[in-house]
Amino acid sequence: MVKDAMPTRPTKTLETFPNPSPGREYEISFDIPEFTCLCPLTGQPDFATVRIRYAPAERCVELKALKLYIWSFRDEGHFHEAVTNRILDDLVAAVAPRWMEVEGDFLVRGGIHTVVRAAHGQRPPAQ
Amino acid sequence: MVKDAMPTRPTKTLETFPNPSPGREYEISFDIPEFTCLCPLTGQPDFATVRIRYAPAERCVELKALKLYIWSFRDEGHFHEAVTNRILDDLVAAVAPRWMEVEGDFLVRGGIHTVVRAAHGQRPPAQ
Amino acid sequence: MVKDAMPTRPTKTLETFPNPSPGREYEISFDIPEFTCLCPLTGQPDFATVRIRYAPAERCVELKALKLYIWSFRDEGHFHEAVTNRILDDLVAAVAPRWMEVEGDFLVRGGIHTVVRAAHGQRPPAQ
Amino acid sequence: MVKDAMPTRPTKTLETFPNPSPGREYEISFDIPEFTCLCPLTGQPDFATVRIRYAPAERCVELKALKLYIWSFRDEGHFHEAVTNRILDDLVAAVAPRWMEVEGDFLVRGGIHTVVRAAHGQRPPAQ
Amino acid sequence: MVKDAMPTRPTKTLETFPNPSPGREYEISFDIPEFTCLCPLTGQPDFATVRIRYAPAERCVELKALKLYIWSFRDEGHFHEAVTNRILDDLVAAVAPRWMEVEGDFLVRGGIHTVVRAAHGQRPPAQ
Amino acid sequence: MVKDAMPTRPTKTLETFPNPSPGREYEISFDIPEFTCLCPLTGQPDFATVRIRYAPAERCVELKALKLYIWSFRDEGHFHEAVTNRILDDLVAAVAPRWMEVEGDFLVRGGIHTVVRAAHGQRPPAQ
Amino acid sequence: MVKDAMPTRPTKTLETFPNPSPGREYEISFDIPEFTCLCPLTGQPDFATVRIRYAPAERCVELKALKLYIWSFRDEGHFHEAVTNRILDDLVAAVAPRWMEVEGDFLVRGGIHTVVRAAHGQRPPAQ
Amino acid sequence: MVKDAMPTRPTKTLETFPNPSPGREYEISFDIPEFTCLCPLTGQPDFATVRIRYAPAERCVELKALKLYIWSFRDEGHFHEAVTNRILDDLVAAVAPRWMEVEGDFLVRGGIHTVVRAAHGQRPPAQ
Amino acid sequence: MVKDAMPTRPTKTLETFPNPSPGREYEISFDIPEFTCLCPLTGQPDFATVRIRYAPAERCVELKALKLYIWSFRDEGHFHEAVTNRILDDLVAAVAPRWMEVEGDFLVRGGIHTVVRAAHGQRPPAQ
Amino acid sequence: MVKDAMPTRPTKTLETFPNPSPGREYEISFDIPEFTCLCPLTGQPDFATVRIRYAPAERCVELKALKLYIWSFRDEGHFHEAVTNRILDDLVAAVAPRWMEVEGDFLVRGGIHTVVRAAHGQRPPAQ
Repeated sequence: MVKDAMPTRPTKTLETFPNPSPGREYEISFDIPEFTCLCPLTGQPDFATVRIRYAPAERCVELKALKLYIWSFRDEGHFHEAVTNRILDDLVAAVAPRWMEVEGDFLVRGGIHTVVRAAHGQRPPAQ
Repeated sequence: MVKDAMPTRPTKTLETFPNPSPGREYEISFDIPEFTCLCPLTGQPDFATVRIRYAPAERCVELKALKLYIWSFRDEGHFHEAVTNRILDDLVAAVAPRWMEVEGDFLVRGGIHTVVRAAHGQRPPAQ
Repeated sequence: MVKDAMPTRPTKTLETFPNPSPGREYEISFDIPEFTCLCPLTGQPDFATVRIRYAPAERCVELKALKLYIWSFRDEGHFHEAVTNRILDDLVAAVAPRWMEVEGDFLVRGGIHTVVRAAHGQRPPAQ
Repeated sequence: MVKDAMPTRPTKTLETFPNPSPGREYEISFDIPEFTCLCPLTGQPDFATVRIRYAPAERCVELKALKLYIWSFRDEGHFHEAVTNRILDDLVAAVAPRWMEVEGDFLVRGGIHTVVRAAHGQRPPAQ
Repeated sequence: MVKDAMPTRPTKTLETFPNPSPGREYEISFDIPEFTCLCPLTGQPDFATVRIRYAPAERCVELKALKLYIWSFRDEGHFHEAVTNRILDDLVAAVAPRWMEVEGDFLVRGGIHTVVRAAHGQRPPAQ
Repeated sequence: MVKDAMPTRPTKTLETFPNPSPGREYEISFDIPEFTCLCPLTGQPDFATVRIRYAPAERCVELKALKLYIWSFRDEGHFHEAVTNRILDDLVAAVAPRWMEVEGDFLVRGGIHTVVRAAHGQRPPAQ
Repeated sequence: MVKDAMPTRPTKTLETFPNPSPGREYEISFDIPEFTCLCPLTGQPDFATVRIRYAPAERCVELKALKLYIWSFRDEGHFHEAVTNRILDDLVAAVAPRWMEVEGDFLVRGGIHTVVRAAHGQRPPAQ
Repeated sequence: MVKDAMPTRPTKTLETFPNPSPGREYEISFDIPEFTCLCPLTGQPDFATVRIRYAPAERCVELKALKLYIWSFRDEGHFHEAVTNRILDDLVAAVAPRWMEVEGDFLVRGGIHTVVRAAHGQRPPAQ
Repeated sequence: MVKDAMPTRPTKTLETFPNPSPGREYEISFDIPEFTCLCPLTGQPDFATVRIRYAPAERCVELKALKLYIWSFRDEGHFHEAVTNRILDDLVAAVAPRWMEVEGDFLVRGGIHTVVRAAHGQRPPAQ
Repeated sequence: MVKDAMPTRPTKTLETFPNPSPGREYEISFDIPEFTCLCPLTGQPDFATVRIRYAPAERCVELKALKLYIWSFRDEGHFHEAVTNRILDDLVAAVAPRWMEVEGDFLVRGGIHTVVRAAHGQRPPAQ
């Protein structure tokens, strides 16, 4: 029972582990209210809740790696639409899921509340 | 990192930018609780929350332009049903989306709470 | 900017106006928490929220006329099931919609909360 | 086990019964979402939830009588401020409570939600 | 305007009345938070909210009869799964609906919140 | 680890145990959504959530005994005001608390939601 | 039963009527989700819910006049703190209440939700 | 009316009873907010609400056995994804349902809220 | 940036750190939904949310130590009333606060939801 | 109507403006869900909603300056208790309010939700 002694830093590397039930199509959801990046135009901070939902195939996203990945956007400039698609692309590349959906739910800017939702593959209709 | 020095005024012009992920059908939502116009019959103010949801094709709506566009209705007379369809028409003309939905959720008049919801194209069923 | 000087009275007449977007199938919703009628058995008052949702074809229901129509039930005896269907019949006769749904959500009687929901035509599945 | 066969009609008479615990200061609350009367200016219906809270002295308000009393306002014209005070006056006259509070919570008129709250006597601070 | 003078007692008899709109498929819902019966193993009381939703064919359930029917379980021993199906069977026998759904939502036992939902026939998909 | 093999029956007896912290004034709350008794006039069932809050002195109410005590009202006729005071009297007699409050929150009858709240002694103001 | 035929326009004049219960200290609340004015720096629209609570002395605020008064700020530039105090000043001047409280609850600007609350006189503590 | 005198202990054995309505496809749901196990890496406790929904075939899960089964994970190390699938596997083995869904809704770890949802068989679409 | 490599185990030791603002009376709140212990009579698990609120004097509770302290009850038998007072006693002994309040909010047992709230010292009234 | 062209950067400087109603004690509240800083031990990001409530004396906090001030903590290491007191100290130094309260409501760490609330001066009791 010894916890990790390695330094933890933000990283775009997404560690994975083998899906414990690869024969079954099932669903994993992550709600992450701690996303922040910068506005590419003004350099001012933006904030969002990121929601990820996917059906794993051979690999699952490791929870702590996901935390460090989300952290890695903190000092980068990103538009709402682009960064939501970027997170989806990175996660799909890392775990090659049956399907995956990423939602970026951004705090109000200019009196407008923006949510971007992108998907890879098709969620089964009746599930 | 210099913020816009141009005067900001209400305008019906809807600036757009290229969709950063044109190859993927995904969804962008805006909730705008700051819509107001005038009743064409009495000249009295009406208030609504406008909700926009769309799948971009080649172009996306620019957030600040959307704010100025919503502002442009402030001194105009519009009926609930007509103005909701008008906003949909203007946005469709500006970005030619795969599909788009506009909802006008109006504050109570005559003890009745009215919501108008119009769509252009068809939202994919399983998304 | 002169407001109506005509006497306003309860009436079963449902004034309409031309649909401003007859070429598009879209949806209008009214929430009316001010419905009251009498129980036909005991003569005691009943109370309901009436919810109307429809897709207009050639004509739309006029908001003030709808208010006066709802008022017209105040001194009449009606059962829950019958009056909800009656409102649907009257509204369909007045505007001949593509489809329409009426919901009567009645306050508790005998410890039971009753909701009656009737529809004319078919709401499109994917909307 | 025979229920009342007497006709039930709206009435301003407020029947009471002896307080079962006259030696203790305690509190009775009624929430009544079924109040309606008429606007004295336009004759149009108004709707309110009436909330009553009191500490009985020698007499308590009878529940069914309270229902018929609330019913009795249905065809009468009353302003919001006056009718709330009137209900308080009538109830105080009927049961002479240690203290009593009446709240009239009216549905939106002119975009404004009005609540009137009047009290007779003083609610104990620490209760 | 004379209210019922007959004794009201719990009864398994479910009185009905003719559907006022037999030509239309529509939906009636009852929420009844006052169901109680006994645990057949321990004799201790169980509590549930019973929710009924159906499309009437020729007959509708009479509201007061439904109240007395629900009351009739008060001193009987029933398991959660069985009693929910029993209520569905009794109601289907009484009104022969187009379709019907009964939900028994039971208060926590052993740290577990149980809901049983049974249906007769098929609710139309797009309604 | 053997659970009680004694028959459990409804009972007015309220078993108690010694307060584990008699030197400190602290607060215990019970929310009991499973109270039912009969209406003394009609014999029909009434339902309530009973809420108890008290500061123990020498004795505390035993949880299982409280459950059996609440059960004991199931087949008895009680008015709302009287039964709430009765529960307070019984509990005060059983544990002689520093102060105690009992609230009976009854389901709607005649369109009116009734809550009765009675207290013994005085809750400290600043707690 | 003839409704007003006079033109209705925004106005800073606050019509009043005699308090129907001048001998009793009681409370009137208005919730007005339809306030809008302009930012004095940028000219862009601001939006707020205005909440007013007061105890009338000799005069009460007339509801329709209050609506027109709130409307009168639509084209004026005001800071959040100043306009909330201004509304309080105007209303106090119009009705000379026992006490009054005005709350301006403004929509998000710069990621910050601002509420300003100002009072004239002292609300009785135990009410 | 004698309650169980047998020792109750955590157990992986899932007792069942015959489905009282085997001829009907219906749904049983359990919400269990009392799941806890250990993190296999750190040995620290994890907490979840487990939600089970299924349509029984020949056998139903016995409620008390389900409680003891959930208890049996208390001192075992399990990953979120694996344990949710394990519970589904065990329950399917015990009752061979028409279909079953298990959801593990875990408390926040690393700022991330994780939900795992796995199903066996196919829930009927229109139910 | 190296995270702790020491084994983390449940412990009754409550590490503290110096209050960074000892000259000011201020308030710290912890909500901990992850408390579990055993019932001393049956050995079965109990679950609670523990809420702690205090004004530090010279020392503050260290967050990670608090987590390990809460963990330390996992395999111990405790009654609701006693364990809430025990946590208050331990925390008071560790940090000698100006005042402190501990609330144990336990999941339903026997259909009853129990909350125990104990305080040390007096929270300032106007804060 | 020209918006600021100056670069906007995070800054600890808190610009102020003269209180428009210095003769009245009133209250201004800011809810800021966009606070983030770093954990001084691990360097990992922390997130909080900061709530500020104060009664201005001679000066008020300027809204845009407040936004830049909150931003200035983004790359700094701060403990929960210290940073909340620091914000209070800075704001008090900037505007010398009659009283002020600052609340830091931090996202979950180690399964514990922490709120720190500090005040300068005394909020009037009856307001």
